Amino acid sequence: MMAQSDLDLKEMALKEDLKFYFMNPCEKYRARRQIPWKLALQILKILMVTTQLVFFGLSNQLVVSFKEENTVAFKHLFLKGYSGTDEDDYSCSIYTQQDAYDSIFYVINQYRNLKNISLGTLGYEHEESGLKICKQQYKRGTMLPSNDTLNIDVSTETECILLKPKELTGKKAELKLNSSFFNLEFYRLIQVEISFKLKGIALQTIHARELPDCYAFQNTITFNNRAHSGKIKVYFDSDTDIQECKDWHIFNSVLQKNTQYILVFDGFVILSCLASLILCTRSIVLSSCPVVAFELFFTSLVGWPCSVRGR
Amino acid sequence: MMAQSDLDLKEMALKEDLKFYFMNPCEKYRARRQIPWKLALQILKILMVTTQLVFFGLSNQLVVSFKEENTVAFKHLFLKGYSGTDEDDYSCSIYTQQDAYDSIFYVINQYRNLKNISLGTLGYEHEESGLKICKQQYKRGTMLPSNDTLNIDVSTETECILLKPKELTGKKAELKLNSSFFNLEFYRLIQVEISFKLKGIALQTIHARELPDCYAFQNTITFNNRAHSGKIKVYFDSDTDIQECKDWHIFNSVLQKNTQYILVFDGFVILSCLASLILCTRSIVLSSCPVVAFELFFTSLVGWPCSVRGR
Amino acid sequence: MMAQSDLDLKEMALKEDLKFYFMNPCEKYRARRQIPWKLALQILKILMVTTQLVFFGLSNQLVVSFKEENTVAFKHLFLKGYSGTDEDDYSCSIYTQQDAYDSIFYVINQYRNLKNISLGTLGYEHEESGLKICKQQYKRGTMLPSNDTLNIDVSTETECILLKPKELTGKKAELKLNSSFFNLEFYRLIQVEISFKLKGIALQTIHARELPDCYAFQNTITFNNRAHSGKIKVYFDSDTDIQECKDWHIFNSVLQKNTQYILVFDGFVILSCLASLILCTRSIVLSSCPVVAFELFFTSLVGWPCSVRGR
Amino acid sequence: MMAQSDLDLKEMALKEDLKFYFMNPCEKYRARRQIPWKLALQILKILMVTTQLVFFGLSNQLVVSFKEENTVAFKHLFLKGYSGTDEDDYSCSIYTQQDAYDSIFYVINQYRNLKNISLGTLGYEHEESGLKICKQQYKRGTMLPSNDTLNIDVSTETECILLKPKELTGKKAELKLNSSFFNLEFYRLIQVEISFKLKGIALQTIHARELPDCYAFQNTITFNNRAHSGKIKVYFDSDTDIQECKDWHIFNSVLQKNTQYILVFDGFVILSCLASLILCTRSIVLSSCPVVAFELFFTSLVGWPCSVRGR
Repeated sequence: MMAQSDLDLKEMALKEDLKFYFMNPCEKYRARRQIPWKLALQILKILMVTTQLVFFGLSNQLVVSFKEENTVAFKHLFLKGYSGTDEDDYSCSIYTQQDAYDSIFYVINQYRNLKNISLGTLGYEHEESGLKICKQQYKRGTMLPSNDTLNIDVSTETECILLKPKELTGKKAELKLNSSFFNLEFYRLIQVEISFKLKGIALQTIHARELPDCYAFQNTITFNNRAHSGKIKVYFDSDTDIQECKDWHIFNSVLQKNTQYILVFDGFVILSCLASLILCTRSIVLSSCPVVAFELFFTSLVGWPCSVRGR
Repeated sequence: MMAQSDLDLKEMALKEDLKFYFMNPCEKYRARRQIPWKLALQILKILMVTTQLVFFGLSNQLVVSFKEENTVAFKHLFLKGYSGTDEDDYSCSIYTQQDAYDSIFYVINQYRNLKNISLGTLGYEHEESGLKICKQQYKRGTMLPSNDTLNIDVSTETECILLKPKELTGKKAELKLNSSFFNLEFYRLIQVEISFKLKGIALQTIHARELPDCYAFQNTITFNNRAHSGKIKVYFDSDTDIQECKDWHIFNSVLQKNTQYILVFDGFVILSCLASLILCTRSIVLSSCPVVAFELFFTSLVGWPCSVRGR
Repeated sequence: MMAQSDLDLKEMALKEDLKFYFMNPCEKYRARRQIPWKLALQILKILMVTTQLVFFGLSNQLVVSFKEENTVAFKHLFLKGYSGTDEDDYSCSIYTQQDAYDSIFYVINQYRNLKNISLGTLGYEHEESGLKICKQQYKRGTMLPSNDTLNIDVSTETECILLKPKELTGKKAELKLNSSFFNLEFYRLIQVEISFKLKGIALQTIHARELPDCYAFQNTITFNNRAHSGKIKVYFDSDTDIQECKDWHIFNSVLQKNTQYILVFDGFVILSCLASLILCTRSIVLSSCPVVAFELFFTSLVGWPCSVRGR
Repeated sequence: MMAQSDLDLKEMALKEDLKFYFMNPCEKYRARRQIPWKLALQILKILMVTTQLVFFGLSNQLVVSFKEENTVAFKHLFLKGYSGTDEDDYSCSIYTQQDAYDSIFYVINQYRNLKNISLGTLGYEHEESGLKICKQQYKRGTMLPSNDTLNIDVSTETECILLKPKELTGKKAELKLNSSFFNLEFYRLIQVEISFKLKGIALQTIHARELPDCYAFQNTITFNNRAHSGKIKVYFDSDTDIQECKDWHIFNSVLQKNTQYILVFDGFVILSCLASLILCTRSIVLSSCPVVAFELFFTSLVGWPCSVRGR
């Protein structure tokens, strides 16, 4: 009789447990007055990660548009006769010797007077690196197309000239610019490559109550005469690196507090992710929460970069 | 016997009424020689309201095209190097400091010589309001992008200069234009906003035998450097208000009579709408005309603005 | 017995007739050795009319392209700053007073020097008709948009100046061009219309072994300020009339013979159409050829203009 | 008994043969340890011919792009006011006499200074051939469009002037350029044709480790006034011939060896094609390989031009 009753009791308890197991949070609350704090934690975590993603996307969009507008501005500043839209995969093309010389010296002059021309917050890089002009050409050769005769040395040579920011004006610069380097022999010229590094500061982020970013633009203008078809294609390429500004003082700003808020918020995100992780691990161990397990995996993937950005 | 007959008579009358109730106008006319004047009134009202709508649409179309053509003309007058079509959501863009200064002074000069340049019937507004140039910039700061250093005061300041129509030429104007206000420091400049109010008169309505309208154009040209990307976007915005001309004398015109005709016509519309309203209210009270009730509601919605315009 | 046989014979004849009636031309030929010359006539007629249509189309295409190219050439000659493509339904637009004066005097100067500028075979018309400049404006008025005041006489007046080809240069012309006529008061100006007639000769038809055509171009340039919106729309309209050249001598040419051939060919077309007409009328009378009747109708419609052109 | 057995044996052999005949290469190898060298040969041949086709396509693509870029460069060099894109089937159009003269002399001047203008490796052809300017016009004539009168000699005459490379500057050239030849009478002018031959060398092939090609460009610029509509259409036509460079010395190059490799490779292709040919002929004779027969036909069609190119 006792055993029977004990068995009944056990069966009842199991039934109860099973019933409870398949209840939704509302029913659980009604059954045992148990607050569904695990669910609340999950929802909180999703909300926090989503918020972080949105912030991340917005600040990223600023960065992308800043880079694109800078590239367009560089093309207008340094490419002579740039129409505003690229031809094919190159930006513009040159058909006469005079235009070729003009375009090259246009780049140099615009670079020299950059401070007085550019609207952006641009500056030269270190004193060492400056404007580097390299011409690549066949070593020597004579070509007389009229007689179908051609003497050419296939091996190429590359000559370079470096104009440091310090030397942009004055005697030394003039000497360099008047040197024989700029007597281009187009029949053996392969390409002229002008490269320079500029530094810029994006202030727009301040409006978004974030710290300003410092940028380094590695610009390369290539006059490509590889085809020797009478058409030099001009390529413009701008590689942008984001760097931390070394030395900044921002007055009257809520940036400091704001970054503290962001840090605190990031801390909460990490905490809630950790709590979720522990709960889910426990659930997996108890073999009762595969769905949450998947979510755990997904969350750790998504939440990580966001948390990292917060620093 | 009597009661029976009386009941029969009542039944007959009810039958007759019901029959009559469901008759269409033609049958009604054939049955009782009753002229369907209520229907005629409804048709008349619909015709009159439609006519009014067509007149309203035509005169509105004139207004819209006048506004649009004026905006295009303003863009050609005040934006230097405007190509005729807008880029993206802004009208044109500037890439060099010289172009920025040129564009700003171009607006000022065009405004000063407006009378000798513009083809439209434009005039300055009151003597008090004139050309207002405001520049918004960060309070103070130094930026050395080369060293990644940045000292900036995030709070912004807004400086303004006002050029009154009286002072457009002469010593005072020159002093203002040569002031340090126009030494723009692009690295901390956020935007320059030039705003001015012009008044114009649309004569085209006279051809449509209507009274001329006086317009007030509130033009705002914004040089947006918010992104500090080396590209200043130029926005042109023109807000147009229609005002009644205060003091007009129009000779040899049929406008007076015409407006009288329109007033008479509007009177008839109001009368027919009122009659329709009374008839329908009666029908609703007699609970026999839900369709007309709906029409009443619709008519009052549509007919009202038209009647108002008539004045 | 006799009657029976007679009846049989009649039946046989009818059967034979019916059978023949429904035969195709090949079977008819095999049955009675009858040559289908009616069919041949129809085919011949169709071929001849088609040939005529093709010739007609080709010579017409020359005329259309000549007119179009002339219109494009006129626009480039007489419209200052014409871009090569029309804006909307007008050719170009003007936004400043200076441009308006320049555009008007540009037309006059181009007209005066037409012989030294134009590439086409153009000439002025009679000595009487010349360049006619008409300005339409409100009779009198003052407008002060600043004060919202407007005094205007709605009735319009039209002033005209005529520059005869003889007077294009010299004192009289200068007097006319310096007259107060050209002090445009834009606030009351409605439109300026410049019209002139030019004559031209299309030589290209000579290559097609046809006689050259003489053309009269009635050109009208309208500066439309009707909207008073600050934008003058410039319309160019060219009406072209083909006229017979009065006095032509063409040497070393096969044109004479060629036109004779065409006349002979046209004669044959008319003859074959006539024969077809007679045959079909006969068929219709005999009530046996409704299809041919339709064709007759169609042919007379199509063949007529072609035959007429032959002269 | 013996016969029976013999018959059985024969049947067995036939069965075996048939079985073997329908085996795939793997089964054949397993059955008789026979290496499928015929299959290997076919696969080898397909690989080699494909390789040849790819090389052929790549070198052809270089040739085509070189020709196209040269044509574009010529249009920019020789057509005054060329916009970069062709109108319709002609490159640009002229509307005034001044523009016509300017465009013609522009071609002559650009040709004279070609060495100092062009970016390509271009040279004049032999000393004999030079710049040939031909004008075709009606023999004589007077046209007075004003009076609709026209005297014209339909027979055309063609006058030519030849500017040899030697005479481009100096007294003789000036005399020629100032001669009455350049007094164009546009009313009887049909067309002006300027033709010249230029020689060029394509160096880009050197990068592909091939021998450079010498090109002869036969350029023809036609000013077409055939329509006499006031619009001269300018056509540019460039016929390109590839010629072997007569006299070339290329230093520091692997070209020599490379061509030897290509010759050896071509030899192998020819050998494998021949072997395949013989095998397939044998198969066709034995009536057992229609598929291979088709392939043989296909291969000989495709393989031939590739082998030829190899030289």
